[in-house]
Amino acid sequence: MFLEDGKYNGKTYEYCAGYQYRDSIIIGFAHTNLSGTGHSDLGDFLLMPTIGDLVLDPLETKKGGKGFYSYFSHNKEEASPGYYKVDLDSYNIKAELTASERVGFHQYTFTKSDEVHIILDMVYNVYYYDNKNVWTFVRVENDSLVTGYRQTKGWARTRKVFFAMVFSKPIKSYGHKKYDDIIYDGFYRRFNQSENFPEMAGKNIRAFFNFETDEDEKINVKFALSSVSTAGALENLKAEIPHWDFNRTHEETKAMWNKELSKIEATTLSEGYKINFYTAMYHTNLSPILYEDVDGQYRGLDQNIHQSEGFANYTVFSLWDTYRALHPLFNIIHPERNNNMIKSMLAHHDESVHNMLPVWSHYANENWCMIGYHATSVIADALVKNVGDFNQERALLASVNTANVRYFDGLGDYLDYKYVPDDKSHSSVSKTLEYAYDDWCIAQMAKQLGNVSVEKTFLNRSQYYNNVFDPIIGFMRPKLAGGTFRKDFDPMDTHGQGFIEGNAWNYGLYVPQDIDKMITMMGGKERFAQHLDSLFTIEIDEKYIANHEDITRDGIIGAYVHGNEPGHHIPYLYNWTNYPEKTQERVRMIMNSMYAPTVDGLCGNDDAGQMSAWYVFSSLGFYPVTPGSPYYALGSPLVKEAAIHLNNGKMLTIKANNQSEENIYVKSVSVNGIIIKGTLLSHQQIINGGEIVFEMSNSPGKK
Amino acid sequence: MFLEDGKYNGKTYEYCAGYQYRDSIIIGFAHTNLSGTGHSDLGDFLLMPTIGDLVLDPLETKKGGKGFYSYFSHNKEEASPGYYKVDLDSYNIKAELTASERVGFHQYTFTKSDEVHIILDMVYNVYYYDNKNVWTFVRVENDSLVTGYRQTKGWARTRKVFFAMVFSKPIKSYGHKKYDDIIYDGFYRRFNQSENFPEMAGKNIRAFFNFETDEDEKINVKFALSSVSTAGALENLKAEIPHWDFNRTHEETKAMWNKELSKIEATTLSEGYKINFYTAMYHTNLSPILYEDVDGQYRGLDQNIHQSEGFANYTVFSLWDTYRALHPLFNIIHPERNNNMIKSMLAHHDESVHNMLPVWSHYANENWCMIGYHATSVIADALVKNVGDFNQERALLASVNTANVRYFDGLGDYLDYKYVPDDKSHSSVSKTLEYAYDDWCIAQMAKQLGNVSVEKTFLNRSQYYNNVFDPIIGFMRPKLAGGTFRKDFDPMDTHGQGFIEGNAWNYGLYVPQDIDKMITMMGGKERFAQHLDSLFTIEIDEKYIANHEDITRDGIIGAYVHGNEPGHHIPYLYNWTNYPEKTQERVRMIMNSMYAPTVDGLCGNDDAGQMSAWYVFSSLGFYPVTPGSPYYALGSPLVKEAAIHLNNGKMLTIKANNQSEENIYVKSVSVNGIIIKGTLLSHQQIINGGEIVFEMSNSPGKK
Repeated sequence: MFLEDGKYNGKTYEYCAGYQYRDSIIIGFAHTNLSGTGHSDLGDFLLMPTIGDLVLDPLETKKGGKGFYSYFSHNKEEASPGYYKVDLDSYNIKAELTASERVGFHQYTFTKSDEVHIILDMVYNVYYYDNKNVWTFVRVENDSLVTGYRQTKGWARTRKVFFAMVFSKPIKSYGHKKYDDIIYDGFYRRFNQSENFPEMAGKNIRAFFNFETDEDEKINVKFALSSVSTAGALENLKAEIPHWDFNRTHEETKAMWNKELSKIEATTLSEGYKINFYTAMYHTNLSPILYEDVDGQYRGLDQNIHQSEGFANYTVFSLWDTYRALHPLFNIIHPERNNNMIKSMLAHHDESVHNMLPVWSHYANENWCMIGYHATSVIADALVKNVGDFNQERALLASVNTANVRYFDGLGDYLDYKYVPDDKSHSSVSKTLEYAYDDWCIAQMAKQLGNVSVEKTFLNRSQYYNNVFDPIIGFMRPKLAGGTFRKDFDPMDTHGQGFIEGNAWNYGLYVPQDIDKMITMMGGKERFAQHLDSLFTIEIDEKYIANHEDITRDGIIGAYVHGNEPGHHIPYLYNWTNYPEKTQERVRMIMNSMYAPTVDGLCGNDDAGQMSAWYVFSSLGFYPVTPGSPYYALGSPLVKEAAIHLNNGKMLTIKANNQSEENIYVKSVSVNGIIIKGTLLSHQQIINGGEIVFEMSNSPGKK
Repeated sequence: MFLEDGKYNGKTYEYCAGYQYRDSIIIGFAHTNLSGTGHSDLGDFLLMPTIGDLVLDPLETKKGGKGFYSYFSHNKEEASPGYYKVDLDSYNIKAELTASERVGFHQYTFTKSDEVHIILDMVYNVYYYDNKNVWTFVRVENDSLVTGYRQTKGWARTRKVFFAMVFSKPIKSYGHKKYDDIIYDGFYRRFNQSENFPEMAGKNIRAFFNFETDEDEKINVKFALSSVSTAGALENLKAEIPHWDFNRTHEETKAMWNKELSKIEATTLSEGYKINFYTAMYHTNLSPILYEDVDGQYRGLDQNIHQSEGFANYTVFSLWDTYRALHPLFNIIHPERNNNMIKSMLAHHDESVHNMLPVWSHYANENWCMIGYHATSVIADALVKNVGDFNQERALLASVNTANVRYFDGLGDYLDYKYVPDDKSHSSVSKTLEYAYDDWCIAQMAKQLGNVSVEKTFLNRSQYYNNVFDPIIGFMRPKLAGGTFRKDFDPMDTHGQGFIEGNAWNYGLYVPQDIDKMITMMGGKERFAQHLDSLFTIEIDEKYIANHEDITRDGIIGAYVHGNEPGHHIPYLYNWTNYPEKTQERVRMIMNSMYAPTVDGLCGNDDAGQMSAWYVFSSLGFYPVTPGSPYYALGSPLVKEAAIHLNNGKMLTIKANNQSEENIYVKSVSVNGIIIKGTLLSHQQIINGGEIVFEMSNSPGKK
């Protein structure tokens, strides 16, 4: 998505990943992208091969001519983990892409031409507002090496990314053009900078590199990234891809992906389910991302260069989404990575001028997206599950620091009033509920570490959800600073009713730390089950859906919104009523209706892996309703069988006997031959390995 | 000088140092400034203490109220090397400033007030065009430490400077305001950023820090700089000023200055001459400046961080000016610093994507100001004088590389045509003359290193000045690519006549490598002496002076322009005629008329020390007419006596017997008792120490 200065085109959601299946044109291949986030950024360093007259405008030239884009069609497109291939029909160029961890590897196959161009577009951005470039800098170091950097002010406010790009063939000639309103260039004006001048700098630059090719000649480009410096990018390039064998890198990358994806070997009822399952597995591996050079150096929040000691540094923590199921999933299949992520969060805390754990960690920036301080949940979940070797005392201290930053998003008021007053802060109920849950997570850490005082303080705070429940109407409801509930209130409306991206009907059920108490508060098990029934069946008015970017009819069942996160635990709440079979029904229904093996298979954006992590867990038959506790709620597995290769060398096999489309009910569950009671599974039962067998049935059985 | 976005106010010259004596107001104290350069930049991090209502606009508020400036008067102002004091009358604040090498130290004495503000203005710039800020970033790390950086696109195109500022007293409260047209700030908008929010970022920011004070209470501020990072700035701060004793730092800095200034102990005819001499000595120490952190890290031209191995890294090389006399002066009194500078130039070459030595090295940038590649002169001068331990082979290679960058400023044409064709390049004659001289310097290096091939090539190139001499009119004259001289030509005009900041009359005499041949070419000694006589006495029309920023009547004697550099050697050229006494006359005349012990004592800007170095040399009685040769031309000393403390432990005493205002003629010169013949002094004669005695007289004596 190409955005010119100052315009807002409202297409954030459609284009946040930098790829829109509906499109018929390609304007190039960028080197950083977010996958399934609710906001947009990145899109650094767009590379585009063309043939013929040089055109430097992506979509349309000033005179109305065709931009440098190419038409393409999906039937000449191929994508698999670590590989992408497409025919650029406008130029008769075959483009293939693969990558190592820090280096993109391009392979372009050309026809015979003496007018081949590879365009490096430093203007291109993925962002929903303004041209976010702050500065760009490019050096043509020699006849095949180009280095540079870009600084942007997008979703990440002060963000730098450096590159080193090397061509497999010497550049014949090159040049660049600036797209700035005011181009005053000091005494550089003495040079003819547009042709073969090796030093380019400005706000908006497009560079081009010219080549001659024979028929079927390939030109390869290796494109290394670094958060530290161009020197760092060059070291990454040398370390990761010291050769020009595109297929070798493709094979190595494929092998790495297969290793990760095969951590769970699933047998499914159909090929479609298999595609769904491994697509979900793939998505759960796309972020958080490694954010350090091969030598362990990385740019920190303070914009200084740090060295990761005893960990690998990660970024892209979309924590409001991912603390729910993605990080708990990591605790089972990627504990070492989750350990690195927690250490990265602690480093983030230490580098933060606020002394806060990340809310949304974003390329050496905090972008403050969404609410809560859910890093505490991620840490508590790992801590109670004994995952990792991070410093637990330091983690507790960082969590307590975070939970006491009074100027953070209504937190001071939350501490003073014991709820977030609606007249002082937007999304007041959501914040109250989530702060209370996060505080419970901190209490769990303190408990485990024997810190009675902190445990008591935060257990007390974890009860503040009580203060926004209105027993008269039976809903969580925004409360004013004066102590009265807000008069004007619509529990079905998702706008301005004290909730963010949700309403009292669904988001109001967010008390994962005290589910039994919440149910009692809401009138007991029967009445609560009826609330859930209504939630899943109610006919909601169109007005509640219109103009909501993140919620569409596709992602909704009644007033349950699967396309967004705050309700992801809700289908499992029937377990706490007398109707666990309804959890089984709803979970299977959601898996069937909200995930499909098609290009538009998800009912909302993937939210950095959370939608997919929900699917992986639910497919296996359980779900972490309360991260920070060592228990999972049982659901209804979709797999026939799954072998989970655990980090401790053990293997856990999950079997669903009599699995079928109809047999969605769970008659019994046995762990290593012993039938378990209740609807919970412990982390220990999973991590010990062995066999969990679900006996499936076409009718609800008593548990 | 405060410049708003996009305006050009034409006051570059007046305000390039950030201080204008004529002004009656002060808007604060910045931490980087250039001294006496012909262009402007820097002015980073303006600090201003105020009392009363908070005002964040420097000159005038939007409503027309008074800005935060203060009135001041020169009679309550005090300045000495390493110390500045002024009363800020508008606020009744006494401001004192001192510094170590990398840390500024402020001391503000306040009256009793609960409304004391210290403003950190990140918008303020010294630059002649546009608002040059690219990005600014500030963190309030704790109750007394603030860090941050600024990136600018001024004379240096891609320039970053980092700081760490610490207050002697905890900040009571603080805040900031942005001055950007579009302030979209992502999810930072959730915060009240204007009050006590510790993280600030944007293009244009002014921050303020509030304090309460008692009567006569001092608040100190230490302000450390780094080219590397805020972490680097903080280390510089800790290493250089680990205490709060302002007087101690002042005393230490004063001692360092005295050490440098007393390398020449001069006795003069008058107090005024003494002030002139030591003012000049002071100026010659203001730049080039140290450009590395205490740990030796510095930002290179490639914007990567480098470590200086075996040298200290310097920047601010205004080489078109300073190769003439400043670096030769360093070879006598600061050989170790000049050695570091040459090593810095070699590092610059290695970091340069052009593989070029610096033209104008400017804070990890090349600003390309003026012409030639005079780093070769600096290196050759050190090499033939056996100064330093830099790698001479590497220095020769770097010089040869530099002299072969075809796209540099007409250099390709110079190589092809053996002169710079006037229809292809501006300032064609100046470039031809200076390239030829620089090439001669390279030949001198090659000769010393026994590289016959390079010597021959560059000796050949050093003769290209012949190709722009028109024997018909007897002047250097612009020649076209076709081989004919340009028809329309005015040898007196300094605009568009093939010369830069000069004309054929003065700049045309620039063949320092072949003075005898030039004189022959211009008609022999008598005719050349007449040319010089005319040059110094001609009445030039006002039209030739109007609209020339760098040349005013004050700096002109006839058509000789002392206020600018290309003619600085000219007064000494009489030595090559039959009238060396005229050199003596002119040199004394220039010293008397162009330098004065007053605030406007110079006849032009100091050009980074060159004007002053000319004065120091001339005061001592000799001048390096041809840097790159080990000889100095004799003039007429102004000192009565001077002791030069040489780096080798020896001392050279210069005595001017019978020195007086009238006795400007040199009857004889003896070195260690032996009267020398001719008008040259060798570097060896200086560096051996001992005594050089000038016998002065009131009438020209035969030499």
